[in-house]
Amino acid sequence: MDTTIQPINYLNAGVTRQPDGTTVFRVWAPFRQVVALRLGDNDIPMNATGHGYWEAKVTDIQPGTPYWYILDEDLRRPDPASYWQPEGVHGPSFIAASNFTFTDHDWKGIAPEKLVIYELHTGTFSPEGTFDGIRQRLPYLKDLGITAIELMPVAQFPGNRNWGYDGVFPFAVQNSYGTPDDLKALVNAAHKAGLGVILDVVYNHLGPEGNYLRDFGPYFTDKYKTPWGDAINFDGPYCDAVRGFFIQNALRWLDEFHIDALRMDAVHAYFDSSAVHFTAELATAVRDLETRCGRRKLLIGEIDLNDPRYVSPPLQGGYGLDGQWVDEFHHALHALLTGEQQGYYEDFGSLEALARSFSDVYVYTGQYSVHRKRRFGKKPEGLPFHQFVVFSQNHDQVGNRLLGDRLSANLPVAALKLAAAAVILSPFIPLLFMGEEYGEKNPFRFFTSHSDPDLVKAVKEGRQQEFAHEGTAPDPQAEETFNGSKLSWNIQDETSAAILSFYKTLLQLRQSRPALQNTAREATTVYFREQSSLLVLERSAKEERLLLAFNLGSEVQSFVYENNGRLREILNSS
Amino acid sequence: MDTTIQPINYLNAGVTRQPDGTTVFRVWAPFRQVVALRLGDNDIPMNATGHGYWEAKVTDIQPGTPYWYILDEDLRRPDPASYWQPEGVHGPSFIAASNFTFTDHDWKGIAPEKLVIYELHTGTFSPEGTFDGIRQRLPYLKDLGITAIELMPVAQFPGNRNWGYDGVFPFAVQNSYGTPDDLKALVNAAHKAGLGVILDVVYNHLGPEGNYLRDFGPYFTDKYKTPWGDAINFDGPYCDAVRGFFIQNALRWLDEFHIDALRMDAVHAYFDSSAVHFTAELATAVRDLETRCGRRKLLIGEIDLNDPRYVSPPLQGGYGLDGQWVDEFHHALHALLTGEQQGYYEDFGSLEALARSFSDVYVYTGQYSVHRKRRFGKKPEGLPFHQFVVFSQNHDQVGNRLLGDRLSANLPVAALKLAAAAVILSPFIPLLFMGEEYGEKNPFRFFTSHSDPDLVKAVKEGRQQEFAHEGTAPDPQAEETFNGSKLSWNIQDETSAAILSFYKTLLQLRQSRPALQNTAREATTVYFREQSSLLVLERSAKEERLLLAFNLGSEVQSFVYENNGRLREILNSS
Repeated sequence: MDTTIQPINYLNAGVTRQPDGTTVFRVWAPFRQVVALRLGDNDIPMNATGHGYWEAKVTDIQPGTPYWYILDEDLRRPDPASYWQPEGVHGPSFIAASNFTFTDHDWKGIAPEKLVIYELHTGTFSPEGTFDGIRQRLPYLKDLGITAIELMPVAQFPGNRNWGYDGVFPFAVQNSYGTPDDLKALVNAAHKAGLGVILDVVYNHLGPEGNYLRDFGPYFTDKYKTPWGDAINFDGPYCDAVRGFFIQNALRWLDEFHIDALRMDAVHAYFDSSAVHFTAELATAVRDLETRCGRRKLLIGEIDLNDPRYVSPPLQGGYGLDGQWVDEFHHALHALLTGEQQGYYEDFGSLEALARSFSDVYVYTGQYSVHRKRRFGKKPEGLPFHQFVVFSQNHDQVGNRLLGDRLSANLPVAALKLAAAAVILSPFIPLLFMGEEYGEKNPFRFFTSHSDPDLVKAVKEGRQQEFAHEGTAPDPQAEETFNGSKLSWNIQDETSAAILSFYKTLLQLRQSRPALQNTAREATTVYFREQSSLLVLERSAKEERLLLAFNLGSEVQSFVYENNGRLREILNSS
Repeated sequence: MDTTIQPINYLNAGVTRQPDGTTVFRVWAPFRQVVALRLGDNDIPMNATGHGYWEAKVTDIQPGTPYWYILDEDLRRPDPASYWQPEGVHGPSFIAASNFTFTDHDWKGIAPEKLVIYELHTGTFSPEGTFDGIRQRLPYLKDLGITAIELMPVAQFPGNRNWGYDGVFPFAVQNSYGTPDDLKALVNAAHKAGLGVILDVVYNHLGPEGNYLRDFGPYFTDKYKTPWGDAINFDGPYCDAVRGFFIQNALRWLDEFHIDALRMDAVHAYFDSSAVHFTAELATAVRDLETRCGRRKLLIGEIDLNDPRYVSPPLQGGYGLDGQWVDEFHHALHALLTGEQQGYYEDFGSLEALARSFSDVYVYTGQYSVHRKRRFGKKPEGLPFHQFVVFSQNHDQVGNRLLGDRLSANLPVAALKLAAAAVILSPFIPLLFMGEEYGEKNPFRFFTSHSDPDLVKAVKEGRQQEFAHEGTAPDPQAEETFNGSKLSWNIQDETSAAILSFYKTLLQLRQSRPALQNTAREATTVYFREQSSLLVLERSAKEERLLLAFNLGSEVQSFVYENNGRLREILNSS
């Protein structure tokens, strides 16, 4: 044993401009005998630098130059760490231009307790479907009262239409959305407007088309199964470089792009038996980055495990994430408002479920779940409520319905207002899904633009199968499915204007009332009466006590408040 | 959602004698339409009692009565929770006799810091190959100076010859070893002699022959892969009953059989993404049992993860096991003593590796492992050394060699003495493998007695493949492979007697010197010089300080002890 070997500092992959003007190309391909860098008609041999890395140094290379890697002399592949794929997922990688200069020097990041998130999909948020399209609408978003936008994944995916979870170049900015510089300009403008930017990143799988990572090395393992096939190799032989690849990716968005937080997709599908879980290693790296850059940086996981370990502090054995999405709050609210009981909604539908979520965040904290056919979850004791993101709608909960229909398509305005208030006045971090703030009527459907006909057929059939009992699913590949999912921006309409105004009022209230900003667990008390469909939250701060009464039934309800003090009405949604 | 549903208290499976003299048969078969209990020529219909359980109550049934379960009217199967399979794994289950009365009322269990473990295989330890054969030799073991025996698995396996890891009836005592009452008599006698009893249990897989659990329900999942095929279903739908089955099993050995501790095989193959890990749920159940029965009960895992979480206290986010095996101590010592570098020994061989194990228990605490091809492990900081079991030999490290040869077959007596001292005078829990205490020359080989010819062939070929580069492996199925693995008990021979005497001296020393009983981390200091092959441990207690010098080279070594105080020689192995 050579005990002088130190932990390997895994190298950054990709293309790096050196201070001396040269450019270093580095790629990880541990099983390859020969790797070359193809620039134009030239194949430049790369040097093996140890632990599976290959390097070539080139002088006088300009942004906009295409390149490939040639594996074992015959396999031509784009760069797994490509920054720019202007010809799509099957084309060459390009040296990305980088001319943008940030001017957000005063921006210090965003504190979790101040977060009010607006989730948007770049391709359908604006008519332009680009980063610039978002940038132009930042004043509207600022005026709305949110504090951060959250971009659905922007990593390069096949074609021009995709939610983003089929991305296959984790470092490349989707070419149909704009350039890397356009994304930087968006982040810079958001910061200048006082808004944070959260980016959705997918570290649990890669998309089914254009994923060439397997040709380079063991990025995947068949030891664990995910709904999307083989899991990422977080704990098998050679996993260090794989872990390093995704950590480098996270740090790049947070550092080079000034992104404030990452929303990590499906963290429950990060299978890792290592003594240091990938999630914990990533969190440590992000804490280091915060110190280096002097800005707050957050990690928020989508985690369907009801396991507080992920968001608990490392000293308590936790993985140290800053926050997580809580789908169960949504399910409890949605099942109550719509009466739906299909699929996972069978586990919800009582007022008690919603009350439980207001009390414990998770609804299932060890009880038997009929849908999961097992006991599920654990109480997240001792964790402040600003570690939990709740919503009444999001891309999944809208888009993964047969027709992608929003709440506004099914519920009266009074119910939409109740849903908005339950989320925005909750002690948790509220997340709005683009358009809900004015009761957008257009659906948000599942759409793709794959080029492989077999895949197109399989996705269409898979989608139809999922909803077989409910009707005919829109064709994901049809351009109309995408176009019909764009926001209408129809906010002048009377109902829309009223809804928008109510959202603004709620958001203003949240930001101006100390009791609504108090995310300590003990500052919220929940009262409910199952029979009368009345749920009351008492939220308090040193300065004040607020009662929030939610009537989930159709009758007028009374509530006797037994504490001392006079009640004054601040807001009435009816 | 019916929120009135409470966490299900999973029911004990198997046959229970009621206080009123009736007998209840209970089996879990959630997907079956009809289940019957076959007693003689009678098929007694069983009642579905919810959550997949089936029950029948019978009067006037005597021990020794055979029974089957009939699934969906045509599949005849023995009971997964059978207590007694006198006709083997394919025969009927039998009502076990239970006439033994324990007389170990004063026994309070064994504290981990007092443990000195003697691992034995019931079939080869004594000429009889039975529990009685062990019982007769308890005086010898007591005289040796160990404090607990550890039985390799005794759950019913196919045939009469097996290490025990192919067991398929976790609740049944291997019929060729004796009856359940014989095992109780052994435990009782051990306790009367002041010895604890540890039982090896396998909760990560079932054997390949006679495993009928799949016919009853989803005991397995294909979501995770283990070296033995599908993993146990610890976190999928219906997992509660599966978890309950194994927890019931653990509690039964500890409670009904008065077993003091369980050695849990391959805990790293318990794949479980639940918020409460199976290991933690089991530990909680055992803590409850301790309170109920007023005796110390221990859980010791074999865990190849170098992850302190498993043995850390629940308040620090740990799973709460009392201890774990540390193979790396063995590997470091073995590679040094033998110079072997094949397989996992490539990660070891330096004196520093052994020094590291004496300092941190784990050798790999985050460094890159050449063998695993990744960084591995984490320092188990703050955990006392009596949570870690070390050995210079065990069933795996001897038996999983081509010829099953022990250290005594390859090393001079001086080296055997050094190995013994390194283990027994370590600050960890020492484990001896049967026979090593007198330098047994007979090998301990891998043996089976399957009845399925295809399986016999596959096991033989698999074994040969594993050692393809080293020579011809003994045929696991040959009776001679088993017979040749029995202890010779050749302790009168001069060399054997000398080795035995040295072991006794070491064990006496460990039990009589306060410094050797101090398992606090800070009470052991390690000095070593790689070049001179000298490793020195300073072990201290309030009353005394001991220096232990291990010379792993062939030359005489000097060591300058720089602290104050006169040195007095207590023991010299040369």
